[in-house]
Amino acid sequence: MEKNSNFDKLENNYLFTEVFNRKQAYMAAHPDARVLNLGIGDVTLPLPEAVITAMHRAVDELSHRDTFHGYGLEQGCDFLRRAIIEHDYRPLGIELDIEEVFISDGAGSDLGNTSELFSSANRVAVQDPVYPAYVDTNVMAGREIVYMPCHPQNGFAAALPKEHVDLIYLCSPNNPTGTAMTRPQLERFVNYAREEGSIIIFDAAYEVFVDDPEVPHSIYEIEGAQEVAIEIRSYSKTAGFTGVRCGYTVVPKATGLQHMWYRRQCTKYNGTSYISQRGAEATYTAEGRAQVMDHIRYYKQTARLLTEGLKGLGYEVYGGQNAPYIWCKTPQGMGSWEFFDYLLEHYRVVCVPGVGFGRSGEGFVRFSAFSDRADCEEATKRLNRH
Amino acid sequence: MEKNSNFDKLENNYLFTEVFNRKQAYMAAHPDARVLNLGIGDVTLPLPEAVITAMHRAVDELSHRDTFHGYGLEQGCDFLRRAIIEHDYRPLGIELDIEEVFISDGAGSDLGNTSELFSSANRVAVQDPVYPAYVDTNVMAGREIVYMPCHPQNGFAAALPKEHVDLIYLCSPNNPTGTAMTRPQLERFVNYAREEGSIIIFDAAYEVFVDDPEVPHSIYEIEGAQEVAIEIRSYSKTAGFTGVRCGYTVVPKATGLQHMWYRRQCTKYNGTSYISQRGAEATYTAEGRAQVMDHIRYYKQTARLLTEGLKGLGYEVYGGQNAPYIWCKTPQGMGSWEFFDYLLEHYRVVCVPGVGFGRSGEGFVRFSAFSDRADCEEATKRLNRH
Repeated sequence: MEKNSNFDKLENNYLFTEVFNRKQAYMAAHPDARVLNLGIGDVTLPLPEAVITAMHRAVDELSHRDTFHGYGLEQGCDFLRRAIIEHDYRPLGIELDIEEVFISDGAGSDLGNTSELFSSANRVAVQDPVYPAYVDTNVMAGREIVYMPCHPQNGFAAALPKEHVDLIYLCSPNNPTGTAMTRPQLERFVNYAREEGSIIIFDAAYEVFVDDPEVPHSIYEIEGAQEVAIEIRSYSKTAGFTGVRCGYTVVPKATGLQHMWYRRQCTKYNGTSYISQRGAEATYTAEGRAQVMDHIRYYKQTARLLTEGLKGLGYEVYGGQNAPYIWCKTPQGMGSWEFFDYLLEHYRVVCVPGVGFGRSGEGFVRFSAFSDRADCEEATKRLNRH
Repeated sequence: MEKNSNFDKLENNYLFTEVFNRKQAYMAAHPDARVLNLGIGDVTLPLPEAVITAMHRAVDELSHRDTFHGYGLEQGCDFLRRAIIEHDYRPLGIELDIEEVFISDGAGSDLGNTSELFSSANRVAVQDPVYPAYVDTNVMAGREIVYMPCHPQNGFAAALPKEHVDLIYLCSPNNPTGTAMTRPQLERFVNYAREEGSIIIFDAAYEVFVDDPEVPHSIYEIEGAQEVAIEIRSYSKTAGFTGVRCGYTVVPKATGLQHMWYRRQCTKYNGTSYISQRGAEATYTAEGRAQVMDHIRYYKQTARLLTEGLKGLGYEVYGGQNAPYIWCKTPQGMGSWEFFDYLLEHYRVVCVPGVGFGRSGEGFVRFSAFSDRADCEEATKRLNRH
């Protein structure tokens, strides 16, 4: 037996472990200190009431023989696929066929698994900094990676790759920079993909945070994108489903990949939890939608508070408007980890060092609007006092 | 962009679609006929009460800020991993480390995904007939397949492959033949794997049906198996979780693969639904276990009824003792589909043609103990009348 030797090429990414360890060490040395965690990447509000009600109802259905549900379709329940088409896409002027919408157990799985549709000889472009899974997934499959640096000088909008690339991962609104691609920026990538015969994997996990009319919610708002783009969305950051697990992936037939993805899912996936799917469906009712938007408004207020607080202190900050993340330049050329330690030592504030998301993240740190509101207020006060 | 061309080598498997279509056509032509479906591969009893109660409680936890759970560990919640070690393995004399147990959203995903740990140059052996996903998953990755025929002459226990193979998929108790491997039969494979440096992927999804003391519940009951075997289990057929989605995979450190699987899951999987994991945990309480075993007894009674009915009619039948499936030889050398049509036309009984599970399944059909009890009784009567 020969192992998949591509695993040996993976770089160890101890970002969150190292953040945790440094925080723990500080707390052990200063047991009375109130340490404020502003780095949280997970939602913190409980599930909307409409979702809770729907999931209780689904559990009850499973308790009676007449209403029991066993295996569902691998591609998901029609009630949810129809709700997605009607509520997430039709209002944007996008028409999708039900066979193009695949329910998943979350964006994390599909962001990795969709790469199976492509040859391992393909060359892959990713934004830098970026969520590390895009890189790792493709390294595991033996693909070459091209990095597209994103920094203040290009407004965090990557330039098109100079060489030909086959796959392009775009995350907008972006984790970690908190910035979002405008229509013209996305158009450039769609046009590139159409000319080069490339495929874009568009990670729209944070689209619900978009409120700038210049920023598309879906890549399919761009003409021709249905020929070249797979779009991946999630209920995790929308409705707090990080522990419930539900998302979806759109693979338009015009990409020529829809039947392959169908075959992949029918072979290697047995469908998403019925309970989770009923919970996701409830986010499309009037009541559910209102509750979801209440949560999003809450997180956006936290983002504003953090942004204004950091700006007031003279820091150079980006993002935070169409996304839950704030990307903050370290002062006086400090390194990411150096600034992390400085904030922890002097203010007992925890953030996430930007360099953990890629080379171009050096000199930045990430703050998160999912953090506790009271902690954010206290952090702003502390930073102001010094 | 170049697609994964291995997908072109997949054979279309329309088994269940074709079964469905022929049944529908018959019903359309005979609208008053009561067609009895004895081919069902999905559970039909509702979830045990203990599971329902636990899942309601989990949903409630997610509705309050203080008890809300976001992302869990990719490898699963410790409460469930500990319960598995204590209840599924310790009574068999098997000790596992918690880091060797990975919770999943079901056996279907992991049976496919574990193949990523291996080079695409590896040669793969599968039982024939077999659940088609083992073959398809490895064809998608470009691996060569070796078939190990299972038939009455070898007691449905495959002979060791004559050539060297790197990976061996074993499903015991087996779908579709309903037969299970004895201790000496499993020992032969474990010894082969240790000598050849191969890895066994052991699909134990039906282990709860085992009541023969000669049949191991786990491959780790065999000495040395922890060096060469990955074991995959599921709550689907145990506790009716086909729609709830929860299973687990054991990757012992002694295989040298545990850290790779950990890395794979952390990159391409975001954990199993908290609600499903709490439901699975409830199957290990005294109450939950008793309810699960009530269901299993019910299905096993149905299996006995079907087996005795078919034997009484003079059919040659296998399986059905340690598994929910009954494997029936077609009479007078009829082909699988020919016998399927015969049963449908003459008795309005639906089964599953064995050839759909592989070449060695030709000349057999599969009946399922998950079928409705009343339908089984009625079918036996009808077959007896003629």
